[in-house]
Amino acid sequence: MATLALERLGAHVRQTRLLGSIHGILYWDQNTLMPSAGAAWRGEQLALLARQLHERQSSDAYAELLAAAEAELPPAGSSDPWQRNLALLRQELERQRQLDPALVAALALAQARGYALWQEARSQADFSRFAPALGELITLRKEQARQLASVEHGQGGSPRSCWETLAQPFEPEISKARLAALFAPLRQRLPTLIERYGRSPAPASGGGHAGWDPTGLALPDPVQQQLCRQLLQEWGFDASCAVLACSPHPFSTTLGPSDFRITSRVVPGQPFSAFLATAHEWGHSLYEQGLPRHDHQWFAWPLGEATSMGVHESQSLFWECRVGRSEAFARRWQPRFRQALAESAAGAWDDPDQFWRALNPRRPGAIRVESDELSYCLHIVLRFDLELALLEGDLPVEELPAEWNRLMVELLGVRPADAAEGCLQDVHWSEGLFGYFPSYALGHLIAAQLAEAMERETGPIEARLATGEDAVLRDWLRVHVHPLGRSVTGEALVERVCGAPLDPTAFLSYLETKLDRLAAGDP
Amino acid sequence: MATLALERLGAHVRQTRLLGSIHGILYWDQNTLMPSAGAAWRGEQLALLARQLHERQSSDAYAELLAAAEAELPPAGSSDPWQRNLALLRQELERQRQLDPALVAALALAQARGYALWQEARSQADFSRFAPALGELITLRKEQARQLASVEHGQGGSPRSCWETLAQPFEPEISKARLAALFAPLRQRLPTLIERYGRSPAPASGGGHAGWDPTGLALPDPVQQQLCRQLLQEWGFDASCAVLACSPHPFSTTLGPSDFRITSRVVPGQPFSAFLATAHEWGHSLYEQGLPRHDHQWFAWPLGEATSMGVHESQSLFWECRVGRSEAFARRWQPRFRQALAESAAGAWDDPDQFWRALNPRRPGAIRVESDELSYCLHIVLRFDLELALLEGDLPVEELPAEWNRLMVELLGVRPADAAEGCLQDVHWSEGLFGYFPSYALGHLIAAQLAEAMERETGPIEARLATGEDAVLRDWLRVHVHPLGRSVTGEALVERVCGAPLDPTAFLSYLETKLDRLAAGDP
Repeated sequence: MATLALERLGAHVRQTRLLGSIHGILYWDQNTLMPSAGAAWRGEQLALLARQLHERQSSDAYAELLAAAEAELPPAGSSDPWQRNLALLRQELERQRQLDPALVAALALAQARGYALWQEARSQADFSRFAPALGELITLRKEQARQLASVEHGQGGSPRSCWETLAQPFEPEISKARLAALFAPLRQRLPTLIERYGRSPAPASGGGHAGWDPTGLALPDPVQQQLCRQLLQEWGFDASCAVLACSPHPFSTTLGPSDFRITSRVVPGQPFSAFLATAHEWGHSLYEQGLPRHDHQWFAWPLGEATSMGVHESQSLFWECRVGRSEAFARRWQPRFRQALAESAAGAWDDPDQFWRALNPRRPGAIRVESDELSYCLHIVLRFDLELALLEGDLPVEELPAEWNRLMVELLGVRPADAAEGCLQDVHWSEGLFGYFPSYALGHLIAAQLAEAMERETGPIEARLATGEDAVLRDWLRVHVHPLGRSVTGEALVERVCGAPLDPTAFLSYLETKLDRLAAGDP
Repeated sequence: MATLALERLGAHVRQTRLLGSIHGILYWDQNTLMPSAGAAWRGEQLALLARQLHERQSSDAYAELLAAAEAELPPAGSSDPWQRNLALLRQELERQRQLDPALVAALALAQARGYALWQEARSQADFSRFAPALGELITLRKEQARQLASVEHGQGGSPRSCWETLAQPFEPEISKARLAALFAPLRQRLPTLIERYGRSPAPASGGGHAGWDPTGLALPDPVQQQLCRQLLQEWGFDASCAVLACSPHPFSTTLGPSDFRITSRVVPGQPFSAFLATAHEWGHSLYEQGLPRHDHQWFAWPLGEATSMGVHESQSLFWECRVGRSEAFARRWQPRFRQALAESAAGAWDDPDQFWRALNPRRPGAIRVESDELSYCLHIVLRFDLELALLEGDLPVEELPAEWNRLMVELLGVRPADAAEGCLQDVHWSEGLFGYFPSYALGHLIAAQLAEAMERETGPIEARLATGEDAVLRDWLRVHVHPLGRSVTGEALVERVCGAPLDPTAFLSYLETKLDRLAAGDP
């Protein structure tokens, strides 16, 4: 009896996934351990795998296999999971077949080179060292969007713009218009909130009431690492399938159906940075661990994947902000931070209320990843505007640092000290990732809406955290969010789980309530 | 103008090397960081790469390319480097083309499974958990030797035995007869030396003279790691192209032309183990770093590779034993170990002479990697005998632990406490590596002969070490040994550099002199 085309297709996508996860290991190693002199060879390794992956994902043999599998399926509604799996494979195939293999290889090389030059440029706060690589990446991405134009259509069949096309892998079905609508209330409201709340009292030396600033206090590296491990332990970290390592830019990645990796890093003068980054990345990983991968085979199909980066970020931000920066959680962890410190320095860490305030500084700063919930989304709005200007407008690469700084002052009232604190701070553009940033803001909006839905069922989140029932929150997400995989889009997930469309209202309302509570304690 | 076949061949072997080094990264990660639950998927990734590598190394297209390049070269003596490059590629091609791809894939899977089961079995000291995997690996390796039989010929065209065939990748041109001849003096002389010197005084508690035993003293992990880093620093470790990490079994690997990795690990109760393992692995890495790879392109050709594992081991053993266990080196490092220790425990570390003795315990033990120079080669003789019995004799896998213990008592007078201390102690068989162990013993012999040649030119090694001129020794190796690559075999290298054939005399003579000096200090 002939093997079903669907089975042969399964073997094909499984091998593609094996190659993709090998690519993931090389990326992981590059960002955690690889010595800098290894970059050139690593770039060639990544380019080789990228070529192979592209070949597998666009070959005639694969196209025939997919067509045969499609023909085998009985006609059914698009809600049938196999129909959905094949439709998602079909969409990706059409994209891959538009791309010139030479472009794919050139991009992989440019990404490796861009990353290496960005590291150098950032360490020297010298944008000019990175600018040519960024220019090349923009040129290649524009070419990519041009090659994809014939298969990229939004609602009603309207063509997608360059930026929209590049954003599809991260945020399927997103449009500039939809983002403009979602971001408008943030653009309008957040500067007002910064005006009203964003001037948390100036630090008082010696840990005086309310004005205490943790940034002056050194929390030694090993102590921070210990607290991070303690946090993960408490949240069910299982060393038989998960790894925590260090990298310059924290990230989370899945290297196999039972191989979950996250990284964190200690930032001098930022005693909570590693702790909150660990919470953030673990949130990503919990989502990955909860995706509907019942066995290795399923791991390879689209439905076993995350549905969008916005939903992914909602999971990380939930654990970083809704949990990690909450008052109840701060009250539980303050004694542990206090205990971990040398006696000499510990005096200032004695007050749980101050500790909570220190986790929520309410002072807009230049760095996105160090930002709290008040100004975070404005960092994203800025990047969204600049990506549009670089890819679809007329902003020359050389003018990026100046334009970045101008917008920082306009939106956040902050002027970066140098390019390392400005347009060189993020890793994304060094790898030519355009269209990714908005997902972070969507994550904040989705997390707020999910939290409302969660509270309707489980009661106040802070009440659970106060009694150490963090697992109740995790389990709610495991039941309602994680197993959906790519069976629904991000927006459809919000509708289904929260009973209302994606909207910034829940986020702004949560934020204002929290800011009121924080401000009530100001001197 | 048509591209030269040699250039096209260069592109081909370069891509093969890219794939091979990707395989290397997966192996590195598996042994340093991968969570245990990742083993199954990793096994499939490795099997996929093994299939691809085999395909590239045995395809008709590659065979035609090689033949075309051979035809292009002018007739020349075999000393022409390009002739030698192509001859080595030809030999490997003939081997690969004999192998059934199904066997290659089965071996890769069995190796991954074997490694995982070995880890489990060793942690529980339960050989029965590993036995079936070992049996499968032996079956597959026998089949491999059978498939290779038609292209494996030793001197005078005589066919190679199963074990000899499997040993070729590690020790080209080796034969059982040659090894028997080289090992005979070791079999004869070492037990006598153990009888005479191998009873270093029983430990005296509290650090009394001569009988002091370091194993009772705990040297905390971070202190040991710090000393290892200090050692590497002093030996020119360059973090821009090298990495030190931890793994259960120390190893060294090269992941790119400028990407050198070594691992070490702290063994409880063995304060010098991590230090000496670091010296050992760094010796391997120095050899790799000194190979004739003038650029990335050269990295892919056979002449850019190490010539044999015996020569490789001679480089690691030189730094571990000739340097690390020498009296002059001990005198330099004793104050640093002393200083690194907490005051309470340090008393016993005050005497440089005792410190040197502690580095050379002269008490045969059960564990090969913890063994000193006196009994090390007997550990190898034992493994050589057992491999022959398993692969060519009639030793059933189930009887391996008993036979191992019987030989340990016979050769070394030591009875392992359990299988973890017995036949499960080494990683090699878990991956089906048979034929590798003799290279360790050859490494001792070669290191001794190279040291004699070195001393003829640079004067006594200990005099250089006493004045901190370690770099003089390294540079001598960099000039005389490392750049030879595969232009000569291991035996030819010894002849060329030392002016005499490979022979155990230098090693035995070095050993007896050292033992006399050590024994002179006995109470």
